[in-house]
Amino acid sequence: MSKAERLARAALTGIVEPGDETGGRWLREYGPVEVLRRLTASGWEGTGKEGPGQEASVREGPGREGPVREAPGREVSGSEGALPEARGSLTGASGKRLAGYRSRATAVDPVRYLEAAAAVGGRLVCPGDEEWPTQLDDLGDARPIALWVRGRPNLRMWALRSVAVVGARACTPYGAHVAATLGGGLAERGWVVVSGAAFGVDGAAHRGVLAVGGATVAVLACGIDVVYPRGHAELIGRIAEQGLVVSELPPGSHPTASRFVLRNRVIAALTRGTVVVEAEYRSGSLVTARSAQRIGRFTMGVPGPVTSGLSAGVHELLRGEGVLVTDAAEIVELVGEIGDLAPARRGPVLPRDLLDPVTARVLEALPARAAADARSVARGAGTTGDEALARLYELHALGFVERHGDDWQLASSAVRGARARRGGA
Amino acid sequence: MSKAERLARAALTGIVEPGDETGGRWLREYGPVEVLRRLTASGWEGTGKEGPGQEASVREGPGREGPVREAPGREVSGSEGALPEARGSLTGASGKRLAGYRSRATAVDPVRYLEAAAAVGGRLVCPGDEEWPTQLDDLGDARPIALWVRGRPNLRMWALRSVAVVGARACTPYGAHVAATLGGGLAERGWVVVSGAAFGVDGAAHRGVLAVGGATVAVLACGIDVVYPRGHAELIGRIAEQGLVVSELPPGSHPTASRFVLRNRVIAALTRGTVVVEAEYRSGSLVTARSAQRIGRFTMGVPGPVTSGLSAGVHELLRGEGVLVTDAAEIVELVGEIGDLAPARRGPVLPRDLLDPVTARVLEALPARAAADARSVARGAGTTGDEALARLYELHALGFVERHGDDWQLASSAVRGARARRGGA
Repeated sequence: MSKAERLARAALTGIVEPGDETGGRWLREYGPVEVLRRLTASGWEGTGKEGPGQEASVREGPGREGPVREAPGREVSGSEGALPEARGSLTGASGKRLAGYRSRATAVDPVRYLEAAAAVGGRLVCPGDEEWPTQLDDLGDARPIALWVRGRPNLRMWALRSVAVVGARACTPYGAHVAATLGGGLAERGWVVVSGAAFGVDGAAHRGVLAVGGATVAVLACGIDVVYPRGHAELIGRIAEQGLVVSELPPGSHPTASRFVLRNRVIAALTRGTVVVEAEYRSGSLVTARSAQRIGRFTMGVPGPVTSGLSAGVHELLRGEGVLVTDAAEIVELVGEIGDLAPARRGPVLPRDLLDPVTARVLEALPARAAADARSVARGAGTTGDEALARLYELHALGFVERHGDDWQLASSAVRGARARRGGA
Repeated sequence: MSKAERLARAALTGIVEPGDETGGRWLREYGPVEVLRRLTASGWEGTGKEGPGQEASVREGPGREGPVREAPGREVSGSEGALPEARGSLTGASGKRLAGYRSRATAVDPVRYLEAAAAVGGRLVCPGDEEWPTQLDDLGDARPIALWVRGRPNLRMWALRSVAVVGARACTPYGAHVAATLGGGLAERGWVVVSGAAFGVDGAAHRGVLAVGGATVAVLACGIDVVYPRGHAELIGRIAEQGLVVSELPPGSHPTASRFVLRNRVIAALTRGTVVVEAEYRSGSLVTARSAQRIGRFTMGVPGPVTSGLSAGVHELLRGEGVLVTDAAEIVELVGEIGDLAPARRGPVLPRDLLDPVTARVLEALPARAAADARSVARGAGTTGDEALARLYELHALGFVERHGDDWQLASSAVRGARARRGGA
């Protein structure tokens, strides 16, 4: 992907609302550079807001009458020179939306976004990047334009073996207990736990993972540099240190009700399945669960007392397509079934030679036949504990290592592979 | 069925253990009179225990060499004069069982059973009787030999629209609350609630029904004149007054561990479905549920906290074939689906002319277009409230009436039927 395209996607994350399928269609048909050009045709040039490092191809914003260029490798369908909705048939919501996007486009500054992300150790991950979790493509035109990511681990690797644990903000002590227990149990089985960093179930799930030194991803409905909810400042900071904080909204963005709902589809799509722990009848967590179902992910629910309104939504789910689960073992048993996403069951999916240098060092630091904890692996690899843990989870997703309690060891298939290579050399 | 057969069945309920399929096969092949004759051939005559009212055909017990007679309408297969297991191949458990049965047969006194049953207002209901619930035939050779029944209502009618609510003896306050709520809710929807009169869930379910003036059946693992558990003396007495107390064991019988388990199959077979409210992993209540599944009944479970061992068994069930239910409406929605057992949905199944006189009077006492409570119906029919209620539930099972809260009214289909008849007359 060209720098121009990356910059255009960065800008578009601040213009097009998450999950807007019309925007997704524009992107598919015209490519990001062209979509941005057309949106800014009537104002982008005049704002004087372009940052110093901005790409020429973006800055050379043509005027309203400028020439139309196709995005590389993309077919342009329909007439050229204007987005479909701008061609005379602007009515109702889509017209208003386009007007809103045009207005935002005049103010957006992708270079500042990138700077703000870099300031908190973040980066932009775009479709086509090595780190892009391709399972997000299951969302079709509602796929995120790009993802803003904070944290050391490789998002794509981590997401391979991940499960979402979500639920009510105003959960009961029962819900919090269950979420934390599931989080810890999934982490101890080598699974990455994805949630939304909200109060209640989400926070408890993240904390349960962190408590056992596990891997967790927070998908926010605001920028990765914005702390929401405020009360979770420390938690989100720890997740950024030890795991990943992800958002499809650019730095500085604030959450809205619809952004919370749409964020849920990203959680659902990133993971192999979504577990709902406490949800009121017709609540937002069920939206995540239903999104998951629609794109072929497992939908699970943890039952609770039928006398509790906070379990009513979960029971509703379980009376439909949802699978009842009561502990981490049952979750793993279910989501671990899909062979195509479970490389560990069939040995590593990537040759060692293709691992990045730090990950390769971490793999080398593991003893041949014994298990070791993350700290001793970190010492052996000459890196920090957090870094080592991030790499170990990547290696787990790739099938090179296994986690047993607090210890890590080479997966038997990986050992066999190494032996075979040595024997053949 | 002849008086001889009835008396033989009465005796056999005190000889053959509940659910013994070998005994069931004997009955099917030889008929009750012949089975009894063969079991008592070596001792029945000599005990001097025959009661005064005993049938000649039973008393004329032939000696070991006596002539073999077939039970009416039954084919005798195999050699005659001895039960199959008595013909030289007596080994192991079946030999011991037969010896036990022979020993019991020398002591059994069916006339005393009938007298003891009559003393508590009980009766014997045999296969072929109008009151026999034919759905018990789904148990095959494990079908009860006969049922001892206390209470006014017609067992067959009541069982047509019944649901079992069962669960742990040592239930939590949550389980008790749920059982009572479900019991009351099912009763208010016109359903008969069957349970086992045990402490815990069973008792709570019965009480929940009685509290709303509903219909409930207790199936005991002891004689209908024996109070077990002692602490439920008053409850069982009230059920016998307002509902039905049923057992396949003769008066005076005491419960044993295996009898509890085997009693469960009767509960399962009598009803359209079994709801389990709290059960430990691998508990007896699950046995009922699985029995229900095997013979094509609905199996349902009420979820609870995954942190509660008393819900673990229910969750186990729900992760298999069981259907998650959270209230009475959901239960009725499920079990009400089977058209062939749900006459109310298609109008009465029995012409009015065939109703017994008291039931017909109760039906006549219902106002043509309004609803009335059981007491005013009782006054109109010139009977007691309990009697009226028993008949109203029968009429409900037959599709003549509907229950709305505390009130009863003619089912719309029954009204239409009556109008059509009047129009045609």
